[in-house]
Amino acid sequence: MKQYTIGIDFGTLSGRCVLVDCENGKELAEAVCNYAHGVMDESLPTGRKLPPLFALQHPADYLEVVRTTIPAVLEKAKIAPEQVKGIGIDFTACTVLPVDKTGTPLCMRPEFEDDPHAYVKLWKHHAAQPEADELNELAEKRQEPWLKVYGGRVSSEWALPKLLETLRKAPQVYGETARFMEAADWLVSKLIGKEIHSLPFVGYKALYHSGAYPSNDFMTALDKGLDGVVGTKLSEKIADFSGPAGTLSQEGAELTGLPVGTVVAVPQIDAHAAMPALQITGDGELMLIMGTSSCHIVNTKTENAVLGVCGYVKDGVIPGLVTYEAGQAAVGDIFDWFVKNSVPASYAEEAKVRNISLHTLLTEKAEGLAVGETGLVALDWFNGNRSVLDDSQLSGVILGLTLGTKPEHIYRALLEATAYGTKMILDTLAFPVHTIKVAGGIANKNALLMQIYADVLNREIQVCQSTQAGALGSAIYGAVAAGVYPDLQAAAKAMGTPVAKCYRPDPENHKAYEKLYAEYVTLHDYFGRGGNDVMHRL
Amino acid sequence: MKQYTIGIDFGTLSGRCVLVDCENGKELAEAVCNYAHGVMDESLPTGRKLPPLFALQHPADYLEVVRTTIPAVLEKAKIAPEQVKGIGIDFTACTVLPVDKTGTPLCMRPEFEDDPHAYVKLWKHHAAQPEADELNELAEKRQEPWLKVYGGRVSSEWALPKLLETLRKAPQVYGETARFMEAADWLVSKLIGKEIHSLPFVGYKALYHSGAYPSNDFMTALDKGLDGVVGTKLSEKIADFSGPAGTLSQEGAELTGLPVGTVVAVPQIDAHAAMPALQITGDGELMLIMGTSSCHIVNTKTENAVLGVCGYVKDGVIPGLVTYEAGQAAVGDIFDWFVKNSVPASYAEEAKVRNISLHTLLTEKAEGLAVGETGLVALDWFNGNRSVLDDSQLSGVILGLTLGTKPEHIYRALLEATAYGTKMILDTLAFPVHTIKVAGGIANKNALLMQIYADVLNREIQVCQSTQAGALGSAIYGAVAAGVYPDLQAAAKAMGTPVAKCYRPDPENHKAYEKLYAEYVTLHDYFGRGGNDVMHRL
Repeated sequence: MKQYTIGIDFGTLSGRCVLVDCENGKELAEAVCNYAHGVMDESLPTGRKLPPLFALQHPADYLEVVRTTIPAVLEKAKIAPEQVKGIGIDFTACTVLPVDKTGTPLCMRPEFEDDPHAYVKLWKHHAAQPEADELNELAEKRQEPWLKVYGGRVSSEWALPKLLETLRKAPQVYGETARFMEAADWLVSKLIGKEIHSLPFVGYKALYHSGAYPSNDFMTALDKGLDGVVGTKLSEKIADFSGPAGTLSQEGAELTGLPVGTVVAVPQIDAHAAMPALQITGDGELMLIMGTSSCHIVNTKTENAVLGVCGYVKDGVIPGLVTYEAGQAAVGDIFDWFVKNSVPASYAEEAKVRNISLHTLLTEKAEGLAVGETGLVALDWFNGNRSVLDDSQLSGVILGLTLGTKPEHIYRALLEATAYGTKMILDTLAFPVHTIKVAGGIANKNALLMQIYADVLNREIQVCQSTQAGALGSAIYGAVAAGVYPDLQAAAKAMGTPVAKCYRPDPENHKAYEKLYAEYVTLHDYFGRGGNDVMHRL
Repeated sequence: MKQYTIGIDFGTLSGRCVLVDCENGKELAEAVCNYAHGVMDESLPTGRKLPPLFALQHPADYLEVVRTTIPAVLEKAKIAPEQVKGIGIDFTACTVLPVDKTGTPLCMRPEFEDDPHAYVKLWKHHAAQPEADELNELAEKRQEPWLKVYGGRVSSEWALPKLLETLRKAPQVYGETARFMEAADWLVSKLIGKEIHSLPFVGYKALYHSGAYPSNDFMTALDKGLDGVVGTKLSEKIADFSGPAGTLSQEGAELTGLPVGTVVAVPQIDAHAAMPALQITGDGELMLIMGTSSCHIVNTKTENAVLGVCGYVKDGVIPGLVTYEAGQAAVGDIFDWFVKNSVPASYAEEAKVRNISLHTLLTEKAEGLAVGETGLVALDWFNGNRSVLDDSQLSGVILGLTLGTKPEHIYRALLEATAYGTKMILDTLAFPVHTIKVAGGIANKNALLMQIYADVLNREIQVCQSTQAGALGSAIYGAVAAGVYPDLQAAAKAMGTPVAKCYRPDPENHKAYEKLYAEYVTLHDYFGRGGNDVMHRL
């Protein structure tokens, strides 16, 4: 009898579920469920207006995804529920909610439904910036040993700033909270009928490193109200990928339409789940996910603090390996900004007549240019700099403009700038990377961009075609948890997506780019490392 | 009987003639004659192809302007030739030609008609850059005292590089040349029947300072072939504005249709001729002519070498005063570049629907922004930097770009950048300037731009409406030469154009601009004075 697994990818606006053949990774059916409440950034369901920078979600929406999409894929693929051996889920992070001692989200209790802090704080909830600033200042002053693990800075998106914000802004919510949980963990706990906390989430987002959170001494120095938070509101029982999270409880079985006892994997962070889907399971392999922004995830054997890299976790993605995460805050967003704001009507007309997109037209025109011919160099900081400077106040620069500069010159300079940004991250990581695999919409759409990356990095760039890497990866984690394969490597090899296209570096182009990259580095350090703080002052 | 004068402005593509009432400066008639040969930058009339960077003219075209436009304005205004008391002309500079001992341009002799160097080398003939570089290097090495008078650098557009180019590239032309003359001087000499060399041209363009050219010692060090050039091919008999150049000869009378004996003024450089037309005749007064580029001309009482300023001449514009000249290589050209290359179709559509220009639309949108709201600062070096860095390899920068940056933000930042460039020139001149008068198309079209200049400079900006300032100024020089007025001051007061509009600085805006200007200065010095030579390397 054929075996199947289900992977569900919980994104920012919807959950996407795939049913996958365990033998070859083939996706037999797919179902998507949009969150009824979407992202709440203006008001609560009660009508209460939200302060700026809030981004909340409703946990009921996650249950609805499970309730509707699993039966839907079974129905579409005509598969018996018994043939599903395992379930894996991946989730945005850090996306956290407070639950009471019965495991009920506080926002689902009538007395808290009008309190914003009782809801899920989505990864992009940015209102805890003051708390993050305070936390960073204190950690630096005390030279907390864990700080360097996280590149020297804690983001306002992470768990502790969000928790501290709740303590200060909504003490009544904080007081009633038994646990602060990642939404992924809460959902899996709900399915298996016992509480679980997954290593990747606490490792990357809650400062849990080498088996411990920051000390109680640090916590109380930050705020007396945090005394004793570790072991109470923050669980110390952490699950890794050495076994499944558990099996479907009666309640979980009713919710999903699958048999009681079906294996559920330990949940994974969405971007990381793509790794086995792209057959990346060894050290020295880097996954680059390119979309509106870029995320760099790379495996090594040894732990080594790297300033400006978002963080690393041992066993957090691939058992036995240390996985680092870094990122560029804007990539596709920059190209889209350019097309929307800086391309003249004559180009729009030409694209329309030829029935191609402006991106395609600009790429065509930029393709014919020799390396360096634009005379331009740009800094890709249109949304600040995530890695390696971690400074959201930095901004973009275009240098070398003349009266002869054409739109395609600037477009190409912007493509190149994002490649320099990636090279800066790789150079900063400074450990062996022998393989670079790229996934994401842009990677498949823009061959010039990929060739520029190959030439700038002087590396082969392997582009993977999967657009569902997250959900497929979750299905692979599900297959391993269910014992269909002995380990992640074997499962990834059988079920993952092979490389669709390879871009090889041109030695001449690389030589020319070495000079341009040196200019980028000089400008990067001048504007980003204190030579000229103009971007902070503007 | 009413008295009139004629002013003719010889531009790059045409000559423009005005007939003016001496009593009040009213323009009674105007006539324009386009040069039949225009600017020859691809081939000679013989069909011979020209090398790159050549820009030649044919002297016959200047005669045609005189022959057709003077009778035309007399006819239009129904004025008797006897009522014209004087003629003044202004000309582009340095625009030079070789003539033989009979005063005939060499290009008009059949044996030289196929030699490019026998023609008029127009101001923007840039093929003598190697000669200019060599000249600058030698002058710096020898610490020639005149070098600092010219801001530390001689332009390839000036007389000596062009002459040296002829010596080396066309020795046969050089050998047959009796004089190298400015086209303005050649034309006036033709009209009055005797050779004349005007102080402004040799003073600003031929390194003639304090009564002398560079020494024969310097000339022979530069090239042995230049031995004895001063006093032979370069005349030492220089005319200033203390009297007229002469009166119309029989030949001049036949050419113009005016009586023999009509007074002809000493010719003037085109931009400078605008000064009396704008009623600028005192010290501490600055004239800013804004067009595709900007020219800053300012009078003082004392001579003081200023690095990066194009040059100064005593008595060169206003008798008794020293007049400095500086410039920005691109101003209106930058705004036009932006509108042509960087404004999206949606804006073009909006402008079309409202039947306004894109410049007007962008100005409207930019007007509503507070100072500093764009978060941008730009360097206005899209065509290099003339003053105060004199470096044609510098290029433009836009800094502070984010995903929220809109076209009007960049447009405003570019307007501001040109104002910073003008402030840098004023700060470098560092002598008292109590009045700033602006003329030129943009000045009358864009009120926001003028208000930005007032706010950045913290000065009242007086905008003058005349669009024919050059020709009117020449007519004023003609009236003074003819003795209609006792001096230039009196003539300018009676005949010049009054101020049309005043822009007064807003103290709050100025305070905000002081901070932004400080950022501009930091970037200016970093990229322009050796902190980072990236623009030379790109």
